[in-house]
Amino acid sequence: MTDSFEQLRQINQPDVRSKIRAGSYSGHTSGLADGFLQANLVILDQSYACDFMRFCQRNPKACPLVGVTDTGSPYMHTLGTDIDIRTDVPSYYVYRRGLLDETVTDISPLWNDQMVGFALGCSFTFEHALIRAGIPVWHIDNDRTVPMFKTNIDTIEAGPFAGPMVVSMRAIPSKKLEMVFSISANFPMAHGVPIHWGDPSVIGIADLNEPDWGDPSPVGDNEIAVFWACGVTPQAAILQAKPPISITHKPGQMLITDVAEDAEVPITSPAN
Amino acid sequence: MTDSFEQLRQINQPDVRSKIRAGSYSGHTSGLADGFLQANLVILDQSYACDFMRFCQRNPKACPLVGVTDTGSPYMHTLGTDIDIRTDVPSYYVYRRGLLDETVTDISPLWNDQMVGFALGCSFTFEHALIRAGIPVWHIDNDRTVPMFKTNIDTIEAGPFAGPMVVSMRAIPSKKLEMVFSISANFPMAHGVPIHWGDPSVIGIADLNEPDWGDPSPVGDNEIAVFWACGVTPQAAILQAKPPISITHKPGQMLITDVAEDAEVPITSPAN
Repeated sequence: MTDSFEQLRQINQPDVRSKIRAGSYSGHTSGLADGFLQANLVILDQSYACDFMRFCQRNPKACPLVGVTDTGSPYMHTLGTDIDIRTDVPSYYVYRRGLLDETVTDISPLWNDQMVGFALGCSFTFEHALIRAGIPVWHIDNDRTVPMFKTNIDTIEAGPFAGPMVVSMRAIPSKKLEMVFSISANFPMAHGVPIHWGDPSVIGIADLNEPDWGDPSPVGDNEIAVFWACGVTPQAAILQAKPPISITHKPGQMLITDVAEDAEVPITSPAN
Repeated sequence: MTDSFEQLRQINQPDVRSKIRAGSYSGHTSGLADGFLQANLVILDQSYACDFMRFCQRNPKACPLVGVTDTGSPYMHTLGTDIDIRTDVPSYYVYRRGLLDETVTDISPLWNDQMVGFALGCSFTFEHALIRAGIPVWHIDNDRTVPMFKTNIDTIEAGPFAGPMVVSMRAIPSKKLEMVFSISANFPMAHGVPIHWGDPSVIGIADLNEPDWGDPSPVGDNEIAVFWACGVTPQAAILQAKPPISITHKPGQMLITDVAEDAEVPITSPAN
């Protein structure tokens, strides 16, 4: 039995995660679990872990590191009481030698005791705040995945990890631009303020109708294209680093955590 | 020839760092280099690097990671154009098997190509903002080192790193408490809002006149003791992890960076 996006919008974050774990939902998570931090996921062999954490530290707009598992543990215990990264993301991308090899909904058969999971903040976290402020978010209203693009902005390299920054795009009413900046500034764990707005060619995007990930989203009259650094950036870096195996979330289908979206730090109390 | 604290207060951050590198100043850096991020320093063998970064990620109030060197490189290139962590801190503590073994002003003879340096945000960064808001900072006015204390608050462990959170204390006029919270909330890379205020025994501090590091600082009538998570916390964790060698700044004597204290992220432009 599968659940619809609209059904999942009505339930709270542990229940959304349970539905996803049970395999009854494998769509995007934008608009779900209002009030809670969502996260990008990257899983690597421990031999890549140190360089990857350096990469995140050096590229904090794109890769705000909000959780790291112990080596071999699939439990992201600092982000919730019962988060198993093998099952709790709707769909996963499996990369082999840097190439996307398969898309699965459960990575338990692939997990091993040398793996480390990394959670990175996601812009979905602040979309609820935009909606509360009366700013429409087209891809939520239309049940689509936010469009994501590679840019001509280089990340700061760390070991084998390098490559272009990836951004997500939302069309914002021009007169609301300042409000959007001020709202997203409150979410430093979720990419903070936009890195660009207006002409996409300035950051190397040729055609807004051809996103590298996600679905195209229109930019209407009196709207402006606004670009945020995106937690899919590591997936571009994995293409360069070419680890034997790496696993990520499928872009748009995030890990939903128990951390409040406005928490000062991305840690649930260890006593929880 | 040595320089006084008052002389160094008049000059800008690269010049302060040059004086420190040249060995002509080995005092505390609180109140120096107004407007720039200051950082705690931890140097470990690369075999400890991954767990230490996990420790920082899990304890972001105490250990906001603002820079990591490449293995073997003494240059903290994301925090400034010319930062050499072997010479640019006034005084260093050298720990062997977790025990403080010596205090030196230059660690070049100890550096090796397996070492990794970590910079952690420091509360000195927001003290300038407090002063600008008319809030007196006693230890700056009196050329002392801020008092630091071990608490009964446990950090979240990562590998061999564990132990109590360390805090710094400033006496704040009671009627300014709200203002102090609101100012320090703007500095998430520098410990953010206080973790406690008022009765020190609640967080396991027996006597404010007996700090574990730094100098005692009085709490006057109409003042309240306010406690911030402190980047000396790793030094308490090193006591537990007992690495063969680790090197830190001497508490109160920080690494001065080229990153603006109000920067959204702790990265100087790679083009700089």
